[in-house]
Amino acid sequence: MKFVTQQEAIAIDEMFFSECSYSVDQLMELAGQSVAHVVFEHHKEARKVLIVCGPGNNGGDGLVVARHLHFFGMNVEVYVPKVGKSVLLQKLVEQLKMLGIPTTTSFVMKETLDQMCASSDVIVDALFGQSFRTPANDTFQEVIDSMIRSNRPVVSIDVPSGWDVEKGDIAGNGLRPEILVSMAAPKLCSQTFSGIHYLGGRFVPKIVSDRFGLTNPVFPANSLFIRL
Amino acid sequence: MKFVTQQEAIAIDEMFFSECSYSVDQLMELAGQSVAHVVFEHHKEARKVLIVCGPGNNGGDGLVVARHLHFFGMNVEVYVPKVGKSVLLQKLVEQLKMLGIPTTTSFVMKETLDQMCASSDVIVDALFGQSFRTPANDTFQEVIDSMIRSNRPVVSIDVPSGWDVEKGDIAGNGLRPEILVSMAAPKLCSQTFSGIHYLGGRFVPKIVSDRFGLTNPVFPANSLFIRL
Repeated sequence: MKFVTQQEAIAIDEMFFSECSYSVDQLMELAGQSVAHVVFEHHKEARKVLIVCGPGNNGGDGLVVARHLHFFGMNVEVYVPKVGKSVLLQKLVEQLKMLGIPTTTSFVMKETLDQMCASSDVIVDALFGQSFRTPANDTFQEVIDSMIRSNRPVVSIDVPSGWDVEKGDIAGNGLRPEILVSMAAPKLCSQTFSGIHYLGGRFVPKIVSDRFGLTNPVFPANSLFIRL
Repeated sequence: MKFVTQQEAIAIDEMFFSECSYSVDQLMELAGQSVAHVVFEHHKEARKVLIVCGPGNNGGDGLVVARHLHFFGMNVEVYVPKVGKSVLLQKLVEQLKMLGIPTTTSFVMKETLDQMCASSDVIVDALFGQSFRTPANDTFQEVIDSMIRSNRPVVSIDVPSGWDVEKGDIAGNGLRPEILVSMAAPKLCSQTFSGIHYLGGRFVPKIVSDRFGLTNPVFPANSLFIRL
């Protein structure tokens, strides 16, 4: 199975939005939705799901996860300490507030975040994705540290936060998720991941697979995700 | 169960894009996707699915259906005789061409359309939706007539094409779909529909339901559609 480098991952995204004519709204919707289905599959009994979102597109995926879980009837809370500037990210946050989902949009004291984590049965890690460069700055490392301290099962989107996209958790201060949902193609770092690994985002055209030599498995029937 | 008027349906859409901060890209993606899942559920063995798309947002939903069915491994063909002018609709068509899906973007002779219908096992009717006012002009009525003549099972999105949105098939020249997938809330006309009726589009916030007195059933688990 082909695992992609950081540069390839970024080039694939660029191809999605240029040659493939996809919009970010579309793919973020499908990416986040597939993660929501994975979370539901494994943790439908959770009394609360905390979704921790970063300022970029990985965080955007997380905002979409929160909305879909809400519509599945789950109890969700969102922590997005720094909201990205794009219109889409701003609107995704507004959607959550409109739905009445508790959404914190600025940094909180670590004790407060610890409490948010402790009151949740599962955490979705949408902090950093394929564009991340180690190390995280101190403020975001504290967010990662809170998630680790909580000992809650974590579902990471695309890349476990704190990990180098290619080399994995080289600094030893990244998350140890229970579940990883890779998007479009697994990144190199996921070769060192020993938890439950899914592929989501059922929208990769053949011209992209061919160009990058992807060898993703075929999704079964109309499933939105596949176990790797 | 509450069935909405044409004016209510249009007002609900307006509320989605203003107060609810949704983008058309998002909701069209989710609407089309839910229809694709219904088609797959009922017609996964179809050798070919013809998707007939109009120039508006109902047509856009159809373009999304085509893409998802393609990713489910189904053989699809698209007839969109008049492509809407919005960037989104143009991009949705480009996506289909990029995927290698046969997509006809101008009016063809009725014999040609008859042939397209005859070579398909099922037809998705995405011609007209909640904004439609009877009667269809002659050119589009011919498209409807071809679908009727084909005797193929039809899956209509939101409103069977040719029907008055409130009064149903008053002119007697509309489609008689096997399946109707209502979006967000069933329209008044669907009270006279005796086929298989689903509700799709799992994205209606409580503030919308409350404002319009919707009494939609609760979707089961993480299902993308529900039988009415």
